[in-house]
Amino acid sequence: MNYKKRALKKHRELKGKISVELKDHLDNMDQLSTYYTPGVGSVSKYIADYPESARELTWINNSVAVISDGSSVLGLGNIGPQASLPVMEGKCMLFKKFAGIDAVPIVLKSQSPKRIIRTITQIAPSFGGINLEDIAAPKCFEIERILKNQLNIPVMHDDQHGTAIVVLAGLINAVKITKKELKKCTVVVNGAGAAGIAIIKLIEKYEPKVKVIAVDSQGIINSKRKKLDDPKQYLLDRHKIADQEGSLADALVNADIFVGVSRADVLSEEMVKSMNKDPIIFAMANPDPEIHPEIAKRAGAAVVATGRSDFPNQVNNALAFPGIFRGALDNHVNRITNKHKMAAAEVIAGLIKKPTAENIIPSVLDTRLVPAIAKVIV
Amino acid sequence: MNYKKRALKKHRELKGKISVELKDHLDNMDQLSTYYTPGVGSVSKYIADYPESARELTWINNSVAVISDGSSVLGLGNIGPQASLPVMEGKCMLFKKFAGIDAVPIVLKSQSPKRIIRTITQIAPSFGGINLEDIAAPKCFEIERILKNQLNIPVMHDDQHGTAIVVLAGLINAVKITKKELKKCTVVVNGAGAAGIAIIKLIEKYEPKVKVIAVDSQGIINSKRKKLDDPKQYLLDRHKIADQEGSLADALVNADIFVGVSRADVLSEEMVKSMNKDPIIFAMANPDPEIHPEIAKRAGAAVVATGRSDFPNQVNNALAFPGIFRGALDNHVNRITNKHKMAAAEVIAGLIKKPTAENIIPSVLDTRLVPAIAKVIV
Repeated sequence: MNYKKRALKKHRELKGKISVELKDHLDNMDQLSTYYTPGVGSVSKYIADYPESARELTWINNSVAVISDGSSVLGLGNIGPQASLPVMEGKCMLFKKFAGIDAVPIVLKSQSPKRIIRTITQIAPSFGGINLEDIAAPKCFEIERILKNQLNIPVMHDDQHGTAIVVLAGLINAVKITKKELKKCTVVVNGAGAAGIAIIKLIEKYEPKVKVIAVDSQGIINSKRKKLDDPKQYLLDRHKIADQEGSLADALVNADIFVGVSRADVLSEEMVKSMNKDPIIFAMANPDPEIHPEIAKRAGAAVVATGRSDFPNQVNNALAFPGIFRGALDNHVNRITNKHKMAAAEVIAGLIKKPTAENIIPSVLDTRLVPAIAKVIV
Repeated sequence: MNYKKRALKKHRELKGKISVELKDHLDNMDQLSTYYTPGVGSVSKYIADYPESARELTWINNSVAVISDGSSVLGLGNIGPQASLPVMEGKCMLFKKFAGIDAVPIVLKSQSPKRIIRTITQIAPSFGGINLEDIAAPKCFEIERILKNQLNIPVMHDDQHGTAIVVLAGLINAVKITKKELKKCTVVVNGAGAAGIAIIKLIEKYEPKVKVIAVDSQGIINSKRKKLDDPKQYLLDRHKIADQEGSLADALVNADIFVGVSRADVLSEEMVKSMNKDPIIFAMANPDPEIHPEIAKRAGAAVVATGRSDFPNQVNNALAFPGIFRGALDNHVNRITNKHKMAAAEVIAGLIKKPTAENIIPSVLDTRLVPAIAKVIV
């Protein structure tokens, strides 16, 4: 049975992949009066008198909402809220399995940024953190920015920052293998959606001297192009990307690193051959990468990473977000900063003591990940 | 240790009373690709193509949001959202324990009806049902009415209907014991908040010939009073309550039944003595009833019920809501009607084969309740 059939079959069997369970027994009237009326009244009264105690007396010390409007789900695009629910439930499984966090899937009826922001602000007192998921660019940037300012709990759009952290982790080890220096590298980022923009920002923050060329479906992003959306314009205005013209092929000539968060098969063997010696290829389109790893290798790639588990070097957000939120909740960190993201990337990279071309990043099943990352989210 | 101290101690130990758990293992890459990427994509795609299948493939077939704005919590009043969270978490425990339902506590930042309605409408695609909780009257009526019209999943404000169902169940058996006929009874309902109004409506629907006198903190509700809020005015306009003047004491002269959802100690021995022979007293103020059961008995009460577990005949919402939602979810009932509420009350009453003064309603721990009620929610 292939993975698609197996997934449908198992989902049909389980009818929902997560459940809510009691943390203590509720078998007699004594227990009922402890956890519900009348005893619970004294707990509510205590929190009303000492609001800070909510963290000690309720589940907000360990709960995260995984929130989507279903506007940009995996490779499926805008499939709406309820169709995105299986992804959010799956993410909640990962939160529990890897980080012990109680995560709740919340999908939103409206896709308007204003309504999304309002709704999340309204339900925020119920949770200890907010993981935004599969919300389309460019609105995702504004939504996250405003929520980070309005809420006093950690908010992270994982498609942006989870991806950016893991890409940076992978690059840190990839340049070691190829004896390149990141600050002397030219990085071509293909795809300027949520992940692409966040990757550019984080790489540039980590190594300001790096040269980044950003490419979208219209070619290289540059100041002669019209109607650039705000996030792309911002990258240009702040000189975070090189202002030059041309196609993806043009961008890659003498580049060192290709980072693809775009579409299947857009990177050709010839393009890889046009890059500098020992090029690094991160081809992360899902489920089919920008170039098949074997073809990339044949064209001279020194390191190849993809988003898939059946090739070496899987760039997977699940390497980052569980530890980030574990740390934020445990250490009472209410704002995930660039410093946190860079520290997390270094921790992830550091778990591979001797990087090789086939092993630049750990497996998501590596149990050292979460405690190590959580420790630097302070 | 008294129940207040025990409750605080246990809440501090547990730090949240519920958790989110996985319904299957997630130990290897095969399982990851079944429940998360890439396999989950085929499940999302399937729901996008066949929206009805969300009920088979996600947890919405078994999930309920327990939602409050913290505006009317137990006897504590308006303590705000986060202080109400322990009550909502407790309710979620009851949902799971009694009905096997996965319930999630959601507390809302704003107490404005418009924002509450908007927020719940936005998050509704995430759940199979909505349990409104501890929202103050009179706004609770409008909020519930509009949500019932806007959403295609069951919505129930439990403080209204859960209470009304259980009171009706108790009354059905209480009149049997006292050989009264409900249609010939005068019922005085003291307290015209969420519960009081719902009780009046349900009793009147169940037995239109009954005479109901409604009393609030200003005395008997009547047409000479000014500035009555909409729900009270509605009761008068529709002749659901008798239009007469006077105090609670005046209302009780020659009445048969007292239903109190008000405050401690407002019912005196003398008032009970002024009622018809074998009066029925439901004194449900929490934690201290409108009259102590012993005093009511001494004054001639034939049956006394309270909201407390340490006296006989505990009127407890937990008798009704688990079965109501279990039935609604299982039978795909998207609207809880008066017919459902009356049927549920009869089922609850019917579980007591031979009612006595000390035993008119089952214990919340009675495992026959949920399946029996669920069966009539069709």
